[in-house]
Amino acid sequence: MLNRLASSISSLLDARADGHALPAGLYTRSDVFEADMDVFFRRHWICVGLECDVPEPGDAAVIDIGKTSLILLRDDDGEIRVVHNVCRHRGSRLLNPGKTIVSKLVCPYHTWTYELSGELSYAPHMGKSFDKECHSLKPVNFKSISGLIYVCLADNPPKDIARLELAMTERLAPYDVPNSKVAFETDVIEHGNWKLTMENNRECYHCSANHPELCVSFVDLDFGFDPETLSPEDRAQAGEHLALYEERILQWTADGYPSAAIEQLVDCETNFRTQRLIISGAGESQTPDATAASSKLLGTMTRKDLGDMHLWGHNSWNHFMGDHAIVAIVIPISPDKTLVRTKWLVHKDAVEGVHYDLEKLTNVWVATTDQDAELVARSHAGVEDPAYVPGPYSPFSETNLDKFATWYIDRMRAHGY
Amino acid sequence: MLNRLASSISSLLDARADGHALPAGLYTRSDVFEADMDVFFRRHWICVGLECDVPEPGDAAVIDIGKTSLILLRDDDGEIRVVHNVCRHRGSRLLNPGKTIVSKLVCPYHTWTYELSGELSYAPHMGKSFDKECHSLKPVNFKSISGLIYVCLADNPPKDIARLELAMTERLAPYDVPNSKVAFETDVIEHGNWKLTMENNRECYHCSANHPELCVSFVDLDFGFDPETLSPEDRAQAGEHLALYEERILQWTADGYPSAAIEQLVDCETNFRTQRLIISGAGESQTPDATAASSKLLGTMTRKDLGDMHLWGHNSWNHFMGDHAIVAIVIPISPDKTLVRTKWLVHKDAVEGVHYDLEKLTNVWVATTDQDAELVARSHAGVEDPAYVPGPYSPFSETNLDKFATWYIDRMRAHGY
Amino acid sequence: MLNRLASSISSLLDARADGHALPAGLYTRSDVFEADMDVFFRRHWICVGLECDVPEPGDAAVIDIGKTSLILLRDDDGEIRVVHNVCRHRGSRLLNPGKTIVSKLVCPYHTWTYELSGELSYAPHMGKSFDKECHSLKPVNFKSISGLIYVCLADNPPKDIARLELAMTERLAPYDVPNSKVAFETDVIEHGNWKLTMENNRECYHCSANHPELCVSFVDLDFGFDPETLSPEDRAQAGEHLALYEERILQWTADGYPSAAIEQLVDCETNFRTQRLIISGAGESQTPDATAASSKLLGTMTRKDLGDMHLWGHNSWNHFMGDHAIVAIVIPISPDKTLVRTKWLVHKDAVEGVHYDLEKLTNVWVATTDQDAELVARSHAGVEDPAYVPGPYSPFSETNLDKFATWYIDRMRAHGY
Repeated sequence: MLNRLASSISSLLDARADGHALPAGLYTRSDVFEADMDVFFRRHWICVGLECDVPEPGDAAVIDIGKTSLILLRDDDGEIRVVHNVCRHRGSRLLNPGKTIVSKLVCPYHTWTYELSGELSYAPHMGKSFDKECHSLKPVNFKSISGLIYVCLADNPPKDIARLELAMTERLAPYDVPNSKVAFETDVIEHGNWKLTMENNRECYHCSANHPELCVSFVDLDFGFDPETLSPEDRAQAGEHLALYEERILQWTADGYPSAAIEQLVDCETNFRTQRLIISGAGESQTPDATAASSKLLGTMTRKDLGDMHLWGHNSWNHFMGDHAIVAIVIPISPDKTLVRTKWLVHKDAVEGVHYDLEKLTNVWVATTDQDAELVARSHAGVEDPAYVPGPYSPFSETNLDKFATWYIDRMRAHGY
Repeated sequence: MLNRLASSISSLLDARADGHALPAGLYTRSDVFEADMDVFFRRHWICVGLECDVPEPGDAAVIDIGKTSLILLRDDDGEIRVVHNVCRHRGSRLLNPGKTIVSKLVCPYHTWTYELSGELSYAPHMGKSFDKECHSLKPVNFKSISGLIYVCLADNPPKDIARLELAMTERLAPYDVPNSKVAFETDVIEHGNWKLTMENNRECYHCSANHPELCVSFVDLDFGFDPETLSPEDRAQAGEHLALYEERILQWTADGYPSAAIEQLVDCETNFRTQRLIISGAGESQTPDATAASSKLLGTMTRKDLGDMHLWGHNSWNHFMGDHAIVAIVIPISPDKTLVRTKWLVHKDAVEGVHYDLEKLTNVWVATTDQDAELVARSHAGVEDPAYVPGPYSPFSETNLDKFATWYIDRMRAHGY
Repeated sequence: MLNRLASSISSLLDARADGHALPAGLYTRSDVFEADMDVFFRRHWICVGLECDVPEPGDAAVIDIGKTSLILLRDDDGEIRVVHNVCRHRGSRLLNPGKTIVSKLVCPYHTWTYELSGELSYAPHMGKSFDKECHSLKPVNFKSISGLIYVCLADNPPKDIARLELAMTERLAPYDVPNSKVAFETDVIEHGNWKLTMENNRECYHCSANHPELCVSFVDLDFGFDPETLSPEDRAQAGEHLALYEERILQWTADGYPSAAIEQLVDCETNFRTQRLIISGAGESQTPDATAASSKLLGTMTRKDLGDMHLWGHNSWNHFMGDHAIVAIVIPISPDKTLVRTKWLVHKDAVEGVHYDLEKLTNVWVATTDQDAELVARSHAGVEDPAYVPGPYSPFSETNLDKFATWYIDRMRAHGY
């Protein structure tokens, strides 16, 4: 008799073998998806957007995380606010998806009206005993870390985001992300589980066979390789690359640009990794020829040779370069569908056609994202197959996946699964 | 650990606070939807159509209520019949959705043939021991109340429909609904739970901000208002309107047209309300200028100044005016999708282009229905949001929603939830 | 209170009455569908394709059965292989749906490379302790019975396929199916449960009213009729037809073409029936005029008058005629969707436009399949209706449905339901 559906989430967590991918059910089952949304997209900090999504007072952006809809806005004092997009009367959405400009938040249903602070200021026909003060829009825990907006939808957000905050505040300062501009944005729906999306992003084992555009500027061996697998020439080259890293990290750091790897990937609540990476070839930027796409550099940057400050979170990846940055945000939609929202940032005063060419700016990550979507879909389809058994991760090039899987299991356990 | 899905329907019913909207799960959960279909669309009387949907012998209309498909037909004697659209052999649908004309009901699969009475008259290859009499089409409990067809899909239909029948038989007599004609019909799928559709219909708090067309002829204060909320001028006007009501109700009743409100909204099985409402402005009809759309009045009506006889059921709303009527029928499709079927009735001999202009006839409710669909969708999306908490109903303009929610909870309890 | 969903599958099996169709839930419920996929499409032999789908070494065809994806291929030695389309690394699909030509099976994700035997021959960055031999593609139990590929996705495949194998090996020899060519192929998705698809195929009670094209060559009375139902003329004709059968079966068998019915429909694991059927009219083939569509006969056939060797399995039907054959394979998609894949076979050297006209070849079964899809959809819709009660099968023309339902219940029981 079929008892596949009867196994508990806990027994699936038990079934995971060290060094191997997760059991199928953790990628495919609806109950696991609901648990994932609760644990990883509600009780942990997630990246949802940028200060520069709402540059001016009155700017508002609706961001949907599952059934949760948030309004990211800038109030009249220029402060960032994040409130729930749910009227306190009968629950109507206040704003439509997308971006808009508002002076107040007026519910279109019965015209309940909220200030940009979230306070209810108008609600007719409710009688004298109705207390407006108890019906403000619900606020959302959020942090702007150098212009990256992180929210936690539950009470008691993890405290160990402090290390990420500390590291990135220093590292991102010269990029002045809050004063950058979103030059381009894409939403790609990958047909796979969000954890396959994240795993795909945390290794470059697949890069050489799949990402010709990215490989111009990205070194696929940066996240590990088996020297035995390489030809003598490639091995020698890899050795030189490692030596160059040591040299560059030292030099960049000496120049005042902290660059060494900082990892908080296991035994923690908030999952992240950052390091300044070498850019190949022309060495400037993730573009088709590895030269800068924007002649106006980000923030107060004066150098194009500072490589790629990468930052991973459990639902995002980021690359900050001298001329531009990309920020990718991952939002699960269903067990087998995941939104990848990518934003390309340039200096706020950079002008398309003058300082940058949009095609050059976006070429690499538009292509890479499409290629990854195809790979994640293939992977998800296979994981759904009853013939799937979790295979071994490469002990060289997929160690970060092993750490991710280990962290995933630990966090599920920590939340009672 | 996530235990949202584990709560019982009963605990959701418990959680409802007086004067407040329902807890989210009652609008959104699949198990509640199945229960709703069973309790409210199977065990209670529901409005499904009109005698004049099948004006001539042999006319048949298929009406789907969830997975249940009904055939409403007029037999050779001119009598209305309602039977299940399921062959007694292997279950095949006999008729396709929509309207048709039949002499017998022949199953297209194996040609089993039923008389319009539902009796099986032909079933080849079934052998001598097969008893045709045991294989008639299953009949459906139904009532025509002044030409409005109500069915109850379960045994033991509620008896207290008698009060609705008594009231409406008298009130609708002069409109002669059975001899009207369906001049126009729309099916609009609202992206929200059926109870949000019904709540939306039972208040006009949202009208002024959303229904410019309807507000020409409809008085949004008719279903309650908070005098404190109004400006001195509006308050004075509202007072005059209430005084006018008293006068008109008395006058209409004295003229032989019963008009006072009759409500059976709580502590009952069959939920309804009827009252003759004043039409604003020109005072004749729910049209763009409040004048009659059809020069040929309904039934034996001779006056256009008899306002709007409204009737609510738990799955319908109706407005009967001198020149035309609208009948709206609500059929849930899924927890978050609801069909609103609206029919515009005129005198059976009224001719389009001669007696009425279709655009003028349908303008107000086509627009209103589309606007309401948008509001219900916004409302449903918000109710699905984990941040939703049931807000307070206005004690002035949403008292009928409070009654509806109370009735809903009571009826669920009565059926064992 | 609604308890429809609470009943166990076992109680549904109990509820089935002899001589009657199955209770609704067995056709409509998701849990039953999952059980069906496990029992009937995993633990039993199913027909999935043909040797001639992959005629040359390196030819590969992907065949999806639910979430399971198989690669049917011909290796370099010309041998048929069936392996799972799941990389042993991280589960990625190796091949896309459809047919292709390969020299090796290379996973596009990380370039793990498998020989056509399924052995893993290349997997970089996996380290010295990685054992390639443990990571071959998983093989699938399969049998080619005269060129028809049967697989069993579970261990311990039913042994009683031996009788089918014995019968068909002899009967199909002269048709030389492995050396035929797929001249045409259609995928039709029927909107009904797979058991309704199979039931529909196992009776011709519905043929005369629905299949004008098929009835030219097919005798609808072949699978039973009630003599009382027929007119005296039809009864006489039916009698003559039965006499003709006796004569033909004897003659064909005497000529070296075994023709008598062989049935294994109840009290067995592998469900099949075969018999040589008379073709009506011109007597040659299932074409619009019952004459052969291909002038080049199948295999070593020299006669067009050998009727139609039919073969039923529980997920397939087949008709082998002198000039061509049709093979239909049934693959469930969801409780209410079923794929019917039909292949038209001709001699491998038959040339379209020279030896056969494609329209004539495919006309009858293209039309019949579309008609059946419509009937199955009507049937499924009715079975989902709460008003459905399982009706009686005809004791004359639906005896094979009774046997199928009995076998279905028995097999479910045998697997613990």
